[in-house]
Amino acid sequence: MKEYWSRRIQDLEPYVPGEQPQDGRWIKLNTNENPYPPSPDAMRAAREKADADLRLYPDPECTELCAAAAGCWGVRPEQVFCGNGSDEILAFAFQAFFDPERPVVFPRITYSFYPVFIDYFGLSCRPVDMNPDLSVPLEKMYGDNGGVVLANPNAPTGIAVSREEVKKLAAANPDAVVILDEAYVDFGAESALPLIGDFPNLLVVRTLSKSRSLAGLRVGFALGQENLICALRQVRDSFNSYTVDRLAQATAAAALRDTAYFETTRQKVMATRDRIDGVLKKMGFEVCPSSSNFLFVRHPARSGEEIFDELRQRGILVRRWDKDEIRDWLRISVGTEQEMDALTGALEEILRGENGSSGEKTCKKDCNPIE
Amino acid sequence: MKEYWSRRIQDLEPYVPGEQPQDGRWIKLNTNENPYPPSPDAMRAAREKADADLRLYPDPECTELCAAAAGCWGVRPEQVFCGNGSDEILAFAFQAFFDPERPVVFPRITYSFYPVFIDYFGLSCRPVDMNPDLSVPLEKMYGDNGGVVLANPNAPTGIAVSREEVKKLAAANPDAVVILDEAYVDFGAESALPLIGDFPNLLVVRTLSKSRSLAGLRVGFALGQENLICALRQVRDSFNSYTVDRLAQATAAAALRDTAYFETTRQKVMATRDRIDGVLKKMGFEVCPSSSNFLFVRHPARSGEEIFDELRQRGILVRRWDKDEIRDWLRISVGTEQEMDALTGALEEILRGENGSSGEKTCKKDCNPIE
Repeated sequence: MKEYWSRRIQDLEPYVPGEQPQDGRWIKLNTNENPYPPSPDAMRAAREKADADLRLYPDPECTELCAAAAGCWGVRPEQVFCGNGSDEILAFAFQAFFDPERPVVFPRITYSFYPVFIDYFGLSCRPVDMNPDLSVPLEKMYGDNGGVVLANPNAPTGIAVSREEVKKLAAANPDAVVILDEAYVDFGAESALPLIGDFPNLLVVRTLSKSRSLAGLRVGFALGQENLICALRQVRDSFNSYTVDRLAQATAAAALRDTAYFETTRQKVMATRDRIDGVLKKMGFEVCPSSSNFLFVRHPARSGEEIFDELRQRGILVRRWDKDEIRDWLRISVGTEQEMDALTGALEEILRGENGSSGEKTCKKDCNPIE
Repeated sequence: MKEYWSRRIQDLEPYVPGEQPQDGRWIKLNTNENPYPPSPDAMRAAREKADADLRLYPDPECTELCAAAAGCWGVRPEQVFCGNGSDEILAFAFQAFFDPERPVVFPRITYSFYPVFIDYFGLSCRPVDMNPDLSVPLEKMYGDNGGVVLANPNAPTGIAVSREEVKKLAAANPDAVVILDEAYVDFGAESALPLIGDFPNLLVVRTLSKSRSLAGLRVGFALGQENLICALRQVRDSFNSYTVDRLAQATAAAALRDTAYFETTRQKVMATRDRIDGVLKKMGFEVCPSSSNFLFVRHPARSGEEIFDELRQRGILVRRWDKDEIRDWLRISVGTEQEMDALTGALEEILRGENGSSGEKTCKKDCNPIE
């Protein structure tokens, strides 16, 4: 027992994010950041907003940002909720829509923050086993659930489901809110956004961290019918009235408006992903079909831990999990063409059994050695 | 019953912040913002950080910012926790340290977010009645409490207690965490920070929103022994790993380092406050002794609602609460000298019974007419 800690938090097992070394010495392919900078318009907006008005509280309703999001995604501003990153929005949604005695269903292999939210809010869950190819058995998520959470494309596999499949899932859970976490949807999956008018139980969650290159800014969105948006406001205003600061609101709005830049960079990421998918397969890797900005891979000849460690010795960070079903899989974020060439070069070396230049590029003390 | 809403949130009564009109047409003395801009160093830091690295997640541990805070306040970096405004930190602390069956004690008249947190987290509380002069009867907060929360100076009265009194309070609650909300402490109260080494149960909460003119940035701190800081991390990492974005971390650190600017602006605010305190008393107002950047006042001849409405008609926003004990009191933030002259001029008119130029400066539709 930790003295002074509430019972609720004594046994929590928090989410462990991918390590974030701050020294810039790594090829960082471990947290699905975009290799390209944010839109120049976004950076300009941030600089322009760094003015005397920072003394004033931000607009708690993020009116301008909601309008920009609505314009970008073809919904009404009242159907948009903004938050301090999509993790905060997911946390609010778990509390807003789920009750402890009705289990929430999600795939056993998915974003590892979902089970953390379940424990944190004292909820219950029913994880469903994956298909042998690591795709999600959606029909196992039909029925009398207390809630449904689906990342589409799924993490860390990158495998997507179609809008038609999401439609069936929402229809098969009429009494439960279906949260669709579309963090990676811009890299080639079908968004469920066109469905929100028909499904009062469908909440789509978006982030600017991936396809808009703004992981450092912390802005996420929920989109759905007004009743759901209103519930999220109820939670926010009982927790923290001003969650998105002035700089973030203006920067995010500018990023959403710069659709040309967005289109160029996401196409580049997808092209690199598809090229590397081919290279890795030629090297003998099994590669999940990715609709995201990362590749989930394993090699029949080498364990995931071995490859992870050897990449690390060569200054390349990727991500893996100590979880039975995916122990030998690695998740590799799509970097620049040069970064990916360095990755495939290193992997070739590793598979040939050559030593890396170990020792030189060790991580700072405060990073988590194993995630 | 709202369809799809969890039971927990059905009956929440969220916190209602002071209105935040975005049109700049008001003399805004309603949310205790600083009338002076942030440190030029802080604004420069924000502009410099608006770069390509925004594509990368921020440092989740806010290492540089914690170091700046530690340097500023004379504690060790391990004794500092950073969050997305002090409201988020307070929310985390309520969850980290309080259990439902042991009531949390705080003054009946205080920051109105505290009872909201109690409901939100399913906790219980025991508010203590104020002394007749609206000061806090600290001895009523001694004993076997589940937790103690004290704003010092208190809001909305502005009345402070001494460090010696805080010491007695912490000593009289050895089994409970004592949260000291020092949002306004820089305007003339004694901080409890020198006590944290002696009291493992003492958590001091600070914000940059008031004395550092950064309400628009959303950065707050908790300071205490490592065991308490560790509990806050446990909560944060179960909720949202990255709560403070890159721009905010750099801007906040620069603001904390610019001690000369901080000293100048807080002295100006205190001087204006003391001048206006005298002017209001001459006009017949009763004024609570303020150690903060606001004045809590009432007039024997006019109701709080009347004065509030008439100020509003003249384009001046102040704050009041529909609460029996303080129904006739107004909280007036300290603005610039010119703003305060406009305020006292308007109050003189109102007390003489003259009409304001009503109608012209009505608030935008989306503001809350009554707070």
